Amino acid sequence: MENLVISHGRDVVPSKLPVEIVERKGQGHPDYLCDKAAEEMSIAISKWYIENTGRILHHNLDKAVLAGGQSDARIGYGEILEPIYLLLVGRAVGVNSKINGKFLPIGKLVIETTKNWLQEDLPHLNIAHDIIVDYKVRSGSTDLVGNFEESTEIPLANDTSIGIGYAPLTKIEQLTYQTERMLNDPATKKKNPAIGEDIKVMGVRHKNKIDLTIACAMICTELVDVDHYFSTKEEVQSLTLDLAAKIWDGDVTVDVNVADVPGNDDCLYLTVTGTSAEQGDDGQVGRGNRTNGLITPYRPMTLEAAAGKNPISHVGKTYNIAAKKVCEEIVNELSVENVDCYLVSKIGKKITEPQIIEVALVGGSKESKTKRRIEEIVQEQMNKMPDIWRGFLNRSYELY
Amino acid sequence: MENLVISHGRDVVPSKLPVEIVERKGQGHPDYLCDKAAEEMSIAISKWYIENTGRILHHNLDKAVLAGGQSDARIGYGEILEPIYLLLVGRAVGVNSKINGKFLPIGKLVIETTKNWLQEDLPHLNIAHDIIVDYKVRSGSTDLVGNFEESTEIPLANDTSIGIGYAPLTKIEQLTYQTERMLNDPATKKKNPAIGEDIKVMGVRHKNKIDLTIACAMICTELVDVDHYFSTKEEVQSLTLDLAAKIWDGDVTVDVNVADVPGNDDCLYLTVTGTSAEQGDDGQVGRGNRTNGLITPYRPMTLEAAAGKNPISHVGKTYNIAAKKVCEEIVNELSVENVDCYLVSKIGKKITEPQIIEVALVGGSKESKTKRRIEEIVQEQMNKMPDIWRGFLNRSYELY
Amino acid sequence: MENLVISHGRDVVPSKLPVEIVERKGQGHPDYLCDKAAEEMSIAISKWYIENTGRILHHNLDKAVLAGGQSDARIGYGEILEPIYLLLVGRAVGVNSKINGKFLPIGKLVIETTKNWLQEDLPHLNIAHDIIVDYKVRSGSTDLVGNFEESTEIPLANDTSIGIGYAPLTKIEQLTYQTERMLNDPATKKKNPAIGEDIKVMGVRHKNKIDLTIACAMICTELVDVDHYFSTKEEVQSLTLDLAAKIWDGDVTVDVNVADVPGNDDCLYLTVTGTSAEQGDDGQVGRGNRTNGLITPYRPMTLEAAAGKNPISHVGKTYNIAAKKVCEEIVNELSVENVDCYLVSKIGKKITEPQIIEVALVGGSKESKTKRRIEEIVQEQMNKMPDIWRGFLNRSYELY
Amino acid sequence: MENLVISHGRDVVPSKLPVEIVERKGQGHPDYLCDKAAEEMSIAISKWYIENTGRILHHNLDKAVLAGGQSDARIGYGEILEPIYLLLVGRAVGVNSKINGKFLPIGKLVIETTKNWLQEDLPHLNIAHDIIVDYKVRSGSTDLVGNFEESTEIPLANDTSIGIGYAPLTKIEQLTYQTERMLNDPATKKKNPAIGEDIKVMGVRHKNKIDLTIACAMICTELVDVDHYFSTKEEVQSLTLDLAAKIWDGDVTVDVNVADVPGNDDCLYLTVTGTSAEQGDDGQVGRGNRTNGLITPYRPMTLEAAAGKNPISHVGKTYNIAAKKVCEEIVNELSVENVDCYLVSKIGKKITEPQIIEVALVGGSKESKTKRRIEEIVQEQMNKMPDIWRGFLNRSYELY
Repeated sequence: MENLVISHGRDVVPSKLPVEIVERKGQGHPDYLCDKAAEEMSIAISKWYIENTGRILHHNLDKAVLAGGQSDARIGYGEILEPIYLLLVGRAVGVNSKINGKFLPIGKLVIETTKNWLQEDLPHLNIAHDIIVDYKVRSGSTDLVGNFEESTEIPLANDTSIGIGYAPLTKIEQLTYQTERMLNDPATKKKNPAIGEDIKVMGVRHKNKIDLTIACAMICTELVDVDHYFSTKEEVQSLTLDLAAKIWDGDVTVDVNVADVPGNDDCLYLTVTGTSAEQGDDGQVGRGNRTNGLITPYRPMTLEAAAGKNPISHVGKTYNIAAKKVCEEIVNELSVENVDCYLVSKIGKKITEPQIIEVALVGGSKESKTKRRIEEIVQEQMNKMPDIWRGFLNRSYELY
Repeated sequence: MENLVISHGRDVVPSKLPVEIVERKGQGHPDYLCDKAAEEMSIAISKWYIENTGRILHHNLDKAVLAGGQSDARIGYGEILEPIYLLLVGRAVGVNSKINGKFLPIGKLVIETTKNWLQEDLPHLNIAHDIIVDYKVRSGSTDLVGNFEESTEIPLANDTSIGIGYAPLTKIEQLTYQTERMLNDPATKKKNPAIGEDIKVMGVRHKNKIDLTIACAMICTELVDVDHYFSTKEEVQSLTLDLAAKIWDGDVTVDVNVADVPGNDDCLYLTVTGTSAEQGDDGQVGRGNRTNGLITPYRPMTLEAAAGKNPISHVGKTYNIAAKKVCEEIVNELSVENVDCYLVSKIGKKITEPQIIEVALVGGSKESKTKRRIEEIVQEQMNKMPDIWRGFLNRSYELY
Repeated sequence: MENLVISHGRDVVPSKLPVEIVERKGQGHPDYLCDKAAEEMSIAISKWYIENTGRILHHNLDKAVLAGGQSDARIGYGEILEPIYLLLVGRAVGVNSKINGKFLPIGKLVIETTKNWLQEDLPHLNIAHDIIVDYKVRSGSTDLVGNFEESTEIPLANDTSIGIGYAPLTKIEQLTYQTERMLNDPATKKKNPAIGEDIKVMGVRHKNKIDLTIACAMICTELVDVDHYFSTKEEVQSLTLDLAAKIWDGDVTVDVNVADVPGNDDCLYLTVTGTSAEQGDDGQVGRGNRTNGLITPYRPMTLEAAAGKNPISHVGKTYNIAAKKVCEEIVNELSVENVDCYLVSKIGKKITEPQIIEVALVGGSKESKTKRRIEEIVQEQMNKMPDIWRGFLNRSYELY
Repeated sequence: MENLVISHGRDVVPSKLPVEIVERKGQGHPDYLCDKAAEEMSIAISKWYIENTGRILHHNLDKAVLAGGQSDARIGYGEILEPIYLLLVGRAVGVNSKINGKFLPIGKLVIETTKNWLQEDLPHLNIAHDIIVDYKVRSGSTDLVGNFEESTEIPLANDTSIGIGYAPLTKIEQLTYQTERMLNDPATKKKNPAIGEDIKVMGVRHKNKIDLTIACAMICTELVDVDHYFSTKEEVQSLTLDLAAKIWDGDVTVDVNVADVPGNDDCLYLTVTGTSAEQGDDGQVGRGNRTNGLITPYRPMTLEAAAGKNPISHVGKTYNIAAKKVCEEIVNELSVENVDCYLVSKIGKKITEPQIIEVALVGGSKESKTKRRIEEIVQEQMNKMPDIWRGFLNRSYELY
């Protein structure tokens, strides 16, 4: 593997640095909604292609913008004044032409798919009235489609892009991620129906002390009175402290909805639907979590949005997953403190042959045996690349 | 400064790592166009606010989506079949209501501003016909506006966000950036009118060798024949090699438009307008360059889009600039190999009082004198925060 | 009543002319859908105004465009490929500002209202997926709103407009109207579930012979096979002939779906949803039936679209109803063969004081007693004008 | 000609009735703008089809909606706050597919065409900033296109529709029409630059007295002061009275901008661009003038919008012109007081063979010689039908 570089250049892992900062935009956040819209659309269209042509045709649906609505949310009462507007943008082969004698039902796929998962993810959102889902999906550009279509056995990379992974997660990374997951867990919601889905967690570790700042949309119609709002906030705080106690030994503080102005109900974080998209916030694809569900400025990150890209040839999507898998396997098998993996494609070259693969280790042996095992791990992942799309269709990988 | 952390945790700078990867999406790239649209809109509206109210009111215009058009570009001939569609999304105080007895001319500001700079930046784009500029700008959400309005002297942070800077740039960072700037220089265009504005540069350094991959849109109507296309590519390559020779001692290779299929004119990178937005590509705000004009996965990066955010209280914008300035001053004054700066705000707290400031040094003295100077540098930048907006309005900072 | 003109200028009624032509665009026709969307929206917003302010505020929602979708309809199978797009356009006081401390939920009113009646009127249309309902409703223009607001007791006409009515309906007018109503009757649908809602009837009488041409959308998923399609057509024909026998003594022919090409299934009139809006046809407000449910080129007609106009001061709406009522009362009470009524407003004058009222009689006495009774009838209707809005809110008048 | 009916059923012409009402929506009125947008688009696409395929392919572009903008117009100063939004809707063969190896540049045709004539017709409108021109043009429905395509020599009617003409114009019809034309004449504008293009004229004749009500948008930036506004109104009135004196012997009154409230500048009819579309009014295709440029409720009228329909097979367009020509020739040649002509097509039948042709005369001989000449005139027009499209492409016929 001549393009493989195994490096030991860095010798400190994030968890040993004095400061770490980690963020997660949870289910319900406008950027998360855009990411999911893009990815679910790619899955739906991929399945349609397979069913109707036997393989996944070229598409890239990795752009979307959500323009927030206007709502009137008060304790115990809420109304959507103007709906959320979600515009999905991209390219797909078969738009406005027949494929194997069949029309690609692009509108149906976009709207049905999007509304179905929205209904499930945001149960307080009325999908018939509270959101307008629109789309501008055109047929692909000639050259990029050409590139895709020439792929016979092993797909060719559709761009010069970079995929990045790292492992293991630090404690604060785990805590930030799990806090949102726990607060959006059905069991939590059942006990605290006023907790909305739009939950953003920002974790800051300064030496041994972790501060978690949580923005948690409350559902106004599930609240009886103002006290109920504040008691729910306390519950969010308390649940998070319990979780933190299992993960982190040091000090932890948890702040919830810091912008609240007690005594001024207009300044509480109230929503009708559980998402700030109804009023305050707009969103886009690729502006939130990276492919491990986190934003980690102290870590290597790519700006490629995985969500919505075609799962065959768009290495901006597939290489992120492959890189993460390489790291996870290395951490599982070999005794290393931290590993980063960088995969760089070259447009038009086989996706199994990156122009560069870097595995950057902290800790771990420099012996040739270790090196050989790393080579094998990388090679295995590369061998699996042509089949990696199956995992996207099964939603096996976290993407946002 | 109790929130200041000066760390020496990392001891290798990117330039000493075996691999570096750097990317720049140039003027004319769909993501760049979205970034610029957002930022120019923020500048225009800020100026209107100042003129009509004496200060900058709350706004966030940091979302946009560009749906690429369809074009028919061939050597010597080109036609836009369907226009580019650019939708600007955001919030601004005064939309649909009077401010000081005057209506905010939101539509005029959006469309006039956008079309004016597009005309200048993309001279082959016919702004009356080739692009539809639309917008969905609503009045801001009550709570965030409230937060903004309560600011009296020192603005309060409108979010818990992180800003990041680093210095100095490595050689490949400089080279990647300057390559695009040089190719988009008026002098270059004058000699090579077929070079379009949509230029993406991807730099990969492996030890001593740098590979630059350039995607350069060509303007079909400026090309006489196919040979002209290929000779222009050679010129791009040759100009880049000349530039590289001034910056980098080691080996350099330059590849231009790698996806071209010689002999197949349909697979050349031809455009009518100089941007791939006319046909192949869609775009969004915040998906391209960070606030130093580069995408640098080996460096700390924030995912905040600086472009379009309000320049007073949105620390996702202002802290990136402040952090970069801290780093540049430290590098200028003190003998350090590399410095990263992280600034973390807390929603509702004064922007001059971050919850954490980390200055991470590689090299440099650990003496208390140095530490004091760093403290002073940081303090100076914090003191300047309330006035930092002036620099945005003057376009003094690179933002994308 | 100095503005009243009672004329006897014409002495032939349409039924005695050699030719009559009458058309009705039925429930489900794209133009009908637009008319209904506009009017239902006006009703919803009027009710909101009354509930929240005690009176109906200024609005005009009498513009809409429906861009047809794309569908794949075959015998026994159907799929919407691209949804119908319906854009509602107009003006309403209170958009983007508070009224009596409450926000007008314009988006909710538009979308909820529209989807609710669509669901009922087009049971095969999936309102969550098959149609995008969008709107551009702005606050009204200063001057016209001014005009509206100054109205204290008796509203002032908001435009110089004309309203027209006539009575009685001729036989072919009755037949054309009732044919569509009968085919869209739930009882008919129950027996013939394949009959869609988009039914257009064109009646042509030449002397004693009436030809009815019916375009009747069939619902593909309710059809077992091609024979079923043709037997349903025969049923439509047969039902219409039965109805005609009750109304018309002379000859009648009925043609259904004339454009069908037997043997070519692609040329049958098949739909998934019951409306041609899904594929072939676009629509607008005011392009279909007049305020008696018919298009009658041999009759006086106004081009004002009644649907969607505000029911207080827009005489283009209210005068049509008043004129029809005048005619109906005259026909009921006095022995006349035919009567037309024209009412002309003047912008800014009281709606109870038209600038001209013409009652044109065919047959009927020219005695002063008759004249006095006509004056009384007209005066009564004028007296009722300030309250006519109640009838619109109760859907008491046919409008399209 | 067995389908020809020559009738003498009515014996009074409109000019002898006690009342006539006539309206014209002039150049600049939102409905007029929509009509013109639709028709100019049909011309542009027809020309493209001819150039690229040798014949006009199927299209119907007869729907559009204009959502008015928001403006701030004051004496001497004006600003567009939010642009006009114009959405063109329709069907055209070749959208998103190649025709003879060439792409139909649908977007270019729509936007370039529309902006070009707007620039000319509304010189105070900035076409780059003050209006957003958007479109939803899809490929046609299978069945209707099929119908169109099967036409070989003589096109088949694409619908069962009716076309109507009449002649001669009465005095008030001439006066209403010419008033608008005179006020929009370049010579008038040169002397009175403040007269805008959006001029609506409503004429009411009561016996011997004609009242003209004119709504005339004034251009605010061409006005020096309020007196200038009122003096321009007086000029409009005076010019109209001069014109009326040439056409009408009886009394004439002229009212201009009746809704003005003297002393309240906010209630004057001021515009930045010359059209009320900038602020007060929305528009649609087919809601204004009929194919002789007038709205005449006392005359037979069709509701078909001629503008935008395909000029080959859409009889809703072509039959109106043919019917008017029949009437004009009869009036020219034969001594009749008034003639109406009705042409009714049948879907799928040759356009040269209407299912009914009625020529309704008032006055004129009932001799067989006259009857034969009328038959000849009708036959000539029918013979010319297959070529009538040329006149649409040359803009030879008034359509709105």
